[in-house]
Order: sequence, then structure tokens, then C-alpha cells
Amino acid sequence: MLSFILVRPQLGENIGAAARIMKNFGFRNLRLVAPRDGWPNPAADAMAAGGKDVLKNATLYPSLEAASADLSLLFATTARRRDMVKPVRTPQQLGAQLRSDYPNTALPPTGILFGPERTGLENQEVALADAIVTLKVNPDYPSLNLAQTVAILAYELSDYTLEARATSTERPPPPLAPKEQISALCKHLEQALDQANFWSVAEKKTPMLNNLVNMFTRAGWSQQEVRTMRGIIRALTEQQPGSDPADTAE
Amino acid sequence: MLSFILVRPQLGENIGAAARIMKNFGFRNLRLVAPRDGWPNPAADAMAAGGKDVLKNATLYPSLEAASADLSLLFATTARRRDMVKPVRTPQQLGAQLRSDYPNTALPPTGILFGPERTGLENQEVALADAIVTLKVNPDYPSLNLAQTVAILAYELSDYTLEARATSTERPPPPLAPKEQISALCKHLEQALDQANFWSVAEKKTPMLNNLVNMFTRAGWSQQEVRTMRGIIRALTEQQPGSDPADTAE
Repeated sequence: MLSFILVRPQLGENIGAAARIMKNFGFRNLRLVAPRDGWPNPAADAMAAGGKDVLKNATLYPSLEAASADLSLLFATTARRRDMVKPVRTPQQLGAQLRSDYPNTALPPTGILFGPERTGLENQEVALADAIVTLKVNPDYPSLNLAQTVAILAYELSDYTLEARATSTERPPPPLAPKEQISALCKHLEQALDQANFWSVAEKKTPMLNNLVNMFTRAGWSQQEVRTMRGIIRALTEQQPGSDPADTAE
Repeated sequence: MLSFILVRPQLGENIGAAARIMKNFGFRNLRLVAPRDGWPNPAADAMAAGGKDVLKNATLYPSLEAASADLSLLFATTARRRDMVKPVRTPQQLGAQLRSDYPNTALPPTGILFGPERTGLENQEVALADAIVTLKVNPDYPSLNLAQTVAILAYELSDYTLEARATSTERPPPPLAPKEQISALCKHLEQALDQANFWSVAEKKTPMLNNLVNMFTRAGWSQQEVRTMRGIIRALTEQQPGSDPADTAE
């Protein structure tokens, strides 16, 4: 069970946007420590869109100690360097560590801490965490928006809520055309170019044909796509109005 | 050079938040295609915080074709499944692919496309991309906020801005043709096929053209190779013995 804990968040808009992205990545447990503008907050509702149920189920705590009392693991997101002996992880490293430490068992109750917009977490709050999570950012402008930070952590940790994350292709690609069909396409084109007197300089024909073979080999076309190309060559060569190339060029 | 391209964005707030997170991760190139509420937009300014210079330098385009004309690689972020033969990557896989394809050389001009808030990219816009980038999200609520999607891509691709990429003396592969040359090739072929009465069934023309755009986008051809194809189309169309196509088909 993984909870996102917003510590003294200031803007309702950020709380709402955080709830939305949590829902997008399948997280449901939002904890709020002393939100500045009270709770509930209409500005949060407006930004939550389809994540309103995450907001509705959010739990309110007076202090970080109270919000983390039942948790076994705590990670503190922070952009600033802290004068503290504490492991530091990128979001990716945190995900990898959790997968490696808990490969076949449920994650123990775990919280990810996010500090207030202007100031970030206090040092004494960071001290409560098992490790610091930080992002490599532009030194000229390291100040990340709160909800954007939540987005990146939710994205990186979504393994814990969503199944296998990689989708390889949306539709299995059709098999590549066999080489003999690429050869036939090149032969077909060569004949068409012969008829069109394309080879103005005879010695150039062979190297140019090699280039064409290379182009069509690298193109990665399917059988149907090769048939389409041949239909095109036939249409351009024959130029007969009324001929029906539909059977070769669907 | 990596550009973030927001296609017909609706809310200025999202444009501003996108600019801010781009700056956080060291990106500077923002392109806007026909933003709904015009440009500049005070709501964008308010949300950009320290990323105002990214907004100020944003370039405005009337169409996606114009915005991608000078780019050699294009990736389309989309949550919906498309009935399209096109490689699909997670943001992480995209980062890994680019690092692997361009380990020691600068990234060619590359764009990441983000569709409008409600509808996402049109299929014909997705067809222009070399690959689809998608995130594994909660099927109960897959609708990601635009700026949150930008945040996750910026985070995952920040290697290209935050770490100096080593350059080597290896001979770089010939640069990929910019998208405007792929578009021009497809237009040229369309005209030739119009003249040849290729489209026996009128309703099939649009989906078949999309397939052709997809074929030529995936082919990975250089500028010279695109010129060769255009020389071939011209030769087959004109069929004039004695014409000299050598200048276009070396």
C-alpha cells in the first residue's frame, strides 16, 4: 500500500491536480497534513476532474507524525541538498529498489512525502524519512510545481498499481515482406525506369539500383505495402484511365 | 535539438505549466500550433513562473505540417489506441531508443507532439509521427492532464539537456529527411496518382493516403533518397524519352 502525503500544501489547485494524476496511475491513498486553506477545498475539487474520488477519500492529519504513524517506509521528495546522512535516490532508483526489495510480496505500508510549495519539507521532517528522493533538474530553475512532482513519482512508481507497464505495439505489426518480394519490387521498378529512359548515364545505373534496393530494404514494409507500391508503379506506368488497380493497392 | 509541440492547446494554464516544467528539465524549444485562445495568453504567463522565457521564445504555427517541417524525427503522445501500424514506445523506451540510436552524436531535430486537451491528436496527425509514445495508465481514468504529460516526457528525456552528450569523430549517418520533404513527396505522389486515376473508389483515397504517409514516414530515408523517389515519380509520370532526370536522382 503506497500513500502520497502532501505536507502543508498551500494551493487547492495543486491538491486537485495531484489527486487527478494519482488516479491516472492507479493510486488511491492521499494523505493531507494541515492544508493551508482548510479542507475540503473547492479549488481542489475543480482541478481533480476524474480524480474526485481520491480527494473524497483523502485523510486529514494535524502533523506529519500523525500521518506517518502506521507506515513502515517513508521517502521524502526534495530538490534542495540537505546536510544529512541519508540515502538519496532518483524516482527511478526508488522504483527499482522497491521492486528488488519486495519482488514477490506486497509492499509494506509506504509513504511518499511532498513538502509545501514555497519552502519544501523542513529538515526535521526529512529526518523522519528512510531515504531522500530527488530529481536531476536544471540548476537555473530547479523549482518544480508540487503537482508535477507528484506526477513524476506516480508515473515512476505505477508498477505497484498497474500491471506490466510496457506495451510493445498497439496492433501487432504485419510481418515484413519476404526478400523475394523486395527483389520483385526493385525489378518491377527497374523495368519501369528502363521504359521511361530514366538512366541518362549508363554507368550510373548499377550504383543507383543498389541505392534503390537499399532504400526499399530498409523501409520495413509489409507484403501489403509492397503490393501497394507495385500497384502505384503499374498505375503510373500504364496511365490508362479506367484501369482498376484496387486489387493491388488496398 | 528537441522541441515540445502543443497542437491546438485549449487552456493557457496548461501551456504555462508546460513551459515551467520544460525549463525545470532544461528544455527551451516550445512550439504552439493554433492555440485556441490566441497568443500571447496571460493565463499561460501566470502559470509559467520561472519558465516565462520559454513562453516568450515559443514559436507559433498555423498547422502541424508547418510546425514539423524542419524536423527529422517526430513522436506522438497519445493515450488512445489507434488502428495504425506504427511503433509504440513508453517514454522510458523512447529515451532508451534515442540514447541507443544517437549515442555519440547530437540528436537530429526532433519533436514531441501533444494533442489538445479533450480530443487528443487526430489520426492523420499521428500518421505523421515516426512512433507513438504512450503511458500505461489506469483504464478507469486514462485522461492525463496535458501539462502532466509534458512533465513526464520532460523528466524522462532530460538526459538530452541536463547531461552534455559526448561527441565523437565517427562518421554520422546521413541526416533523415525533414518532414516537409516527406510531405512534399506524398503530395507529389498523390498528384501523380490522381492523374493516373488510381483511386478507383473515392472513399478509399483518404485511408490509402494515410497508409502512404505512414509508409514513407517509417522508411527512414535521407534527403537524397527522397529526391531519388521524386525523380522516379517524375520519370514515370512524364514518360518523355530524352528527358534528363539525372539532377534529381543521383
